[in-house]
Parts: sequence; C-alpha cells; structure tokens
Amino acid sequence: MKVAVGGTFQPLHDGHKLLLRTAYEIDGQVDIGLTSDEMARHARIRNVEPYAMREQRLREWIEKKLGKKPHITKLEDPYGTALTEDYDYIVVSPETYPTALKINELRKEKGLKLITIVRVNYVLAEDGKPISSTRIDSGEIDTHGNLLRKGKHEGSGRDQ
Amino acid sequence: MKVAVGGTFQPLHDGHKLLLRTAYEIDGQVDIGLTSDEMARHARIRNVEPYAMREQRLREWIEKKLGKKPHITKLEDPYGTALTEDYDYIVVSPETYPTALKINELRKEKGLKLITIVRVNYVLAEDGKPISSTRIDSGEIDTHGNLLRKGKHEGSGRDQ
Repeated sequence: MKVAVGGTFQPLHDGHKLLLRTAYEIDGQVDIGLTSDEMARHARIRNVEPYAMREQRLREWIEKKLGKKPHITKLEDPYGTALTEDYDYIVVSPETYPTALKINELRKEKGLKLITIVRVNYVLAEDGKPISSTRIDSGEIDTHGNLLRKGKHEGSGRDQ
Repeated sequence: MKVAVGGTFQPLHDGHKLLLRTAYEIDGQVDIGLTSDEMARHARIRNVEPYAMREQRLREWIEKKLGKKPHITKLEDPYGTALTEDYDYIVVSPETYPTALKINELRKEKGLKLITIVRVNYVLAEDGKPISSTRIDSGEIDTHGNLLRKGKHEGSGRDQ
C-alpha cells in the first residue's frame, strides 16, 4: 500500500500527530509531503520555521514515537506527487479534505485511478474547538489543546 | 459527482452526522441507502424503529441542518445500488469500511469501475471511545457522546 499525507506541521500539535499515526496505521509506505517555505508562508500570515527545522522536528517525532523511518519530500504546490504517483490512500484533516477531492478531480481528468481518502477528525482542545496552529501561535492553547488563558504571544510553558 | 452513503441511522448520532456532512461536502448528488427493517433487525439484537420513522428523522435533519433535499432509497442488502450504479465516491465509517472494500471487490469481478472511498473517522465520546448506536441504546452515552452514568436502559435526558 502507498500512503500520502501532507502539511506544514508546525507547531507539531496533537491534530498532526493523529494524522501521522493514522497514516502509519495503514500497512505500507507513507510519503509525507512537507510544504516548502514559499508555500507555507504564502498560506498564512504567521511565522513559519525554515523547512530544514520543520523537517527535522517531524523526523525526530516519527522516529521516536512511531518507530518508523519517515520518507519526507518537499511540497512546492498543494498536490506534490499525489498527481503523478499511484497512491492507495491519502490521509487528510477536515481542513485538507477539499484538497484531496481536488487531487482526485485532477487525477480523473488525467485518466489516473482515484485515491481513497481517509479523513481524520480534528482533535479538539479543552474548549471543544479544534486544535489549530493558528490558535497555538496566538497563545490561546498549547499543542495538546490545553487553554492557556495568558493572552497573546506568551506561548506555552508545557509541551512534550 | 455521484456519492453513495448508507446505514441504519438510528439513533441519529454525531458519528452519523459527520458521515452525512462529509458526503454532502462533495459537490454532487448524494444517494443515501437506508437499511430495511429486515436488514437492520437482522444485524443487531436491539430494537430498531420502523423504516418510515427512521427515514423521516433522517430527512428532517438533512433538510434542516444541511439545507439539502435528501435522496433516500431502501437497502435490502449491504450493497444496494453500489453494485450497479457508477458512483464516484462512497462515504463510510471505520465500521462500514470493509463493506466498501467488498463492494469494490464485487465491482471489479463484474468489470465495473471502482468507487473511491472516503473513510470518515469515528466521533469520540467523552471517554475517548467511539460513539455508537449500541452504546447509546444501552444508556451509556447520549447521541453527542456525553457519558450518562445512569446504568442501563434509562435513556438520555438531553438531546437536540
């Protein structure tokens, strides 16, 4: 089985971790598309760490927590190798679900076989709203969804 | 796009609602297969409301919450029209994912094109275990996954 998953993965939060765990639960080769700095910065106002740093953090977490050697490639557009390689699965969050539908639409036009979409739910923060990088960056919650109630830009005192 | 989704949908819980929302997020015609009373009762020990009642509840929720006119047909077997009509997508829960794989296996034997599967994750109850109709029926949780801790068969005091 070939599995595709993608994102910016910064800060690496419990939503990302569920996405990655779900991808690796499928018995096969997982290809992780990690957004280039250009792509990541284009998509958001907030600061994004350089690719090499994001790549290293992601790699370390996967090796340590999932015991796998990750296969990470750079995404220069939202689709990456998903428009050319025959994946069996693409694992997405609710946020990236429309991209997976778009990938299948483009594959269909090209006469390629469609990819099964595994849609992983949001992980909810303490307040019942989804954990997101934006909320973490603003200092509202930590990477596990704990409410920080410290106001903006003070960051989180605890993480793992 | 043509989209297939199916189930017994009783009691209509947050897992079903996510399944339906995900199906309707795809731009196309959604065909809902609703199990016949024979099928629904065969599959479980617990009581199942008559088809007409389940159909009405489902229809009302979709019209009210998703603003769509649902297209519902009766399922007399686990496959329904998914073995004959050319759907682009079939939206399933982890529970019904094996049925989707079986549908594609049968379609392949018949020389029909495979249906792309969207596998929606479970919605978790307060205790981190999946919301299921069985757990709701036993009085363990309500349709939103809140723990009731009232013991069996007392039912839920709150719902929406």
